[in-house]
Amino acid sequence: MRDLENRSTPLLVVDLPIFESNLTTMSQSLPGLSLRPHVKAFKSTSVAKRLFAAGHTAFCCATIKEVEGMVSAGLADDLLLANEVLDTRRLGSVIADGAHVTVAVDSVETIDAASRGGVKNVLIDVNVGLRRCGCTVPQAGRLADYARGNGLNIRGVMGYEGHLMMMQDREKQADEVRISMEALLAAHQDVGGPIISAGGTGTFELNTWATEIQAGSYLFMDTHYGKSGLPFQQCLSVLARVISIAEDRSWAVVDAGSKALGMDHGNPTVYGGIVAFCSDEHTTLYPEKGQRQVPWAIGDLIHLSPAHVDPTVSKHPEILAVRGNKVIEEWLVDLRDW
Amino acid sequence: MRDLENRSTPLLVVDLPIFESNLTTMSQSLPGLSLRPHVKAFKSTSVAKRLFAAGHTAFCCATIKEVEGMVSAGLADDLLLANEVLDTRRLGSVIADGAHVTVAVDSVETIDAASRGGVKNVLIDVNVGLRRCGCTVPQAGRLADYARGNGLNIRGVMGYEGHLMMMQDREKQADEVRISMEALLAAHQDVGGPIISAGGTGTFELNTWATEIQAGSYLFMDTHYGKSGLPFQQCLSVLARVISIAEDRSWAVVDAGSKALGMDHGNPTVYGGIVAFCSDEHTTLYPEKGQRQVPWAIGDLIHLSPAHVDPTVSKHPEILAVRGNKVIEEWLVDLRDW
Repeated sequence: MRDLENRSTPLLVVDLPIFESNLTTMSQSLPGLSLRPHVKAFKSTSVAKRLFAAGHTAFCCATIKEVEGMVSAGLADDLLLANEVLDTRRLGSVIADGAHVTVAVDSVETIDAASRGGVKNVLIDVNVGLRRCGCTVPQAGRLADYARGNGLNIRGVMGYEGHLMMMQDREKQADEVRISMEALLAAHQDVGGPIISAGGTGTFELNTWATEIQAGSYLFMDTHYGKSGLPFQQCLSVLARVISIAEDRSWAVVDAGSKALGMDHGNPTVYGGIVAFCSDEHTTLYPEKGQRQVPWAIGDLIHLSPAHVDPTVSKHPEILAVRGNKVIEEWLVDLRDW
Repeated sequence: MRDLENRSTPLLVVDLPIFESNLTTMSQSLPGLSLRPHVKAFKSTSVAKRLFAAGHTAFCCATIKEVEGMVSAGLADDLLLANEVLDTRRLGSVIADGAHVTVAVDSVETIDAASRGGVKNVLIDVNVGLRRCGCTVPQAGRLADYARGNGLNIRGVMGYEGHLMMMQDREKQADEVRISMEALLAAHQDVGGPIISAGGTGTFELNTWATEIQAGSYLFMDTHYGKSGLPFQQCLSVLARVISIAEDRSWAVVDAGSKALGMDHGNPTVYGGIVAFCSDEHTTLYPEKGQRQVPWAIGDLIHLSPAHVDPTVSKHPEILAVRGNKVIEEWLVDLRDW
């Protein structure tokens, strides 16, 4: 394979040994079906195949496109679309072809849409504190009854404690996760079914109530998750080239910007300097505190570490898995778009 | 063509009559070659063809991919890559095939790279106040001499007053643009060549010194530019579907989030409500001030207006040009990625 040096920039790069270590660490903690890897974090069937090979054969998806792509790749043993869907035509079509797909529902409307589209299996999505999707605890049993009345099979409940993922105080976080999961268990009492699906990278160790944890970002990590003391290391970066340096060397510019980086958690970081600002296709870098000049030369390749990994991945057509400077594998980001 | 109602969401949508009005307004102000439309704003050769038909036959690109795509679409009469490039192999290849491409240079290294790659035409990129690419005014003439010594043709100078695009005080903005352009004209004195390329949507009327204005965002506009009193209207939005509403109707959730929206200028806005926060594939909406309940029903289609249009476009595979609820044209975003 060609060296990184010979590629056009910007490029999405994963340090393969660290990635493999992250994967193994999680598999040891949550083996097999106790982890339902979240495809939205990597959007690549190449990555999903590695997880499947490690024993994680049930996956979580955020979009219909992710479901369709996983089905095409033969990874459809047990797919959960952890999101409400009103237009179920595309889902119904892959289910009619034999894919095993479960869909989250939280209202009469989404249950009706599931029945109409030919969906057979649903989870009742319960709001456990994040102001997003999910019914209330008292609604859960009634919705399950309504869904059963519509001929749907209820596999259980789902409740994402997303508001707790980034808490710095681990004890407080543990307490809040418990409160969220007590709500989910109360809903499960009324709903039934074998599955209690919850959790994420930030709470995978704390959430001992769920039967399966929905985590994905742990594979790549980002600067945001990096602060939370989790046993995973950052391994995904955007490789960029220094294309311009100010005459007095007080700043440098690289050829990757806000079109190549997930910006919703803020600027990326860089080793050896400070990110001043990102433009569409540029990032301006200042020297480190106490330094007057940037340490790079025009043409240098440098790694930008994104603040938010999931939206960074979805901006790129492929991920290069590298060992040192060698490209070992090329992973198409084949599940992006909708 | 199918109605919008029958499409999967999220979708990137352009109101065609407003788009056409924006295009015409700018063409009347800056006809023909006095505008060099910036492809980075729309990343679609379908849009570029409409501009070409309106007489704007010279284009500005931000990436090599944009140059390659414009060449493939037969829109290569005069392409300016307004960005420094170290790896000129791909550019050299399209130039060898006959495309007319000019590249920005701001250092000995980028001039050497241009010569090495078979680039024939360059502009000297001058820093006029934005801490990004561009040489100093005193460097410009020396770099031009060096480039000529390397057998390159100098077409003139370029200087982007990007730091002035969003200024609210129009008088102060005019004054600052004048100062920036005086610097560019001083550089041009030493550099020569017919082109003085500068400007953008935010300064297109004020910048009377440049021979051509590099503007693109005016076609679609965004909430950020919308505040600046320009004679263009917002016409690009992300169409999303309401997939969940809280039991007390105090919030609603739609199926488009930070993976579908340029987030570097902040959250999108929505008519009839307030954007609470964006997740990867969701946006949570609150009622308007003074209201207790959101006005939508599950299944409703609503438009999110992005804060920054350029990075929003690059997240989507296509743009639907609509008149009312009818899809009139489908524009592939064929110039995205790198």
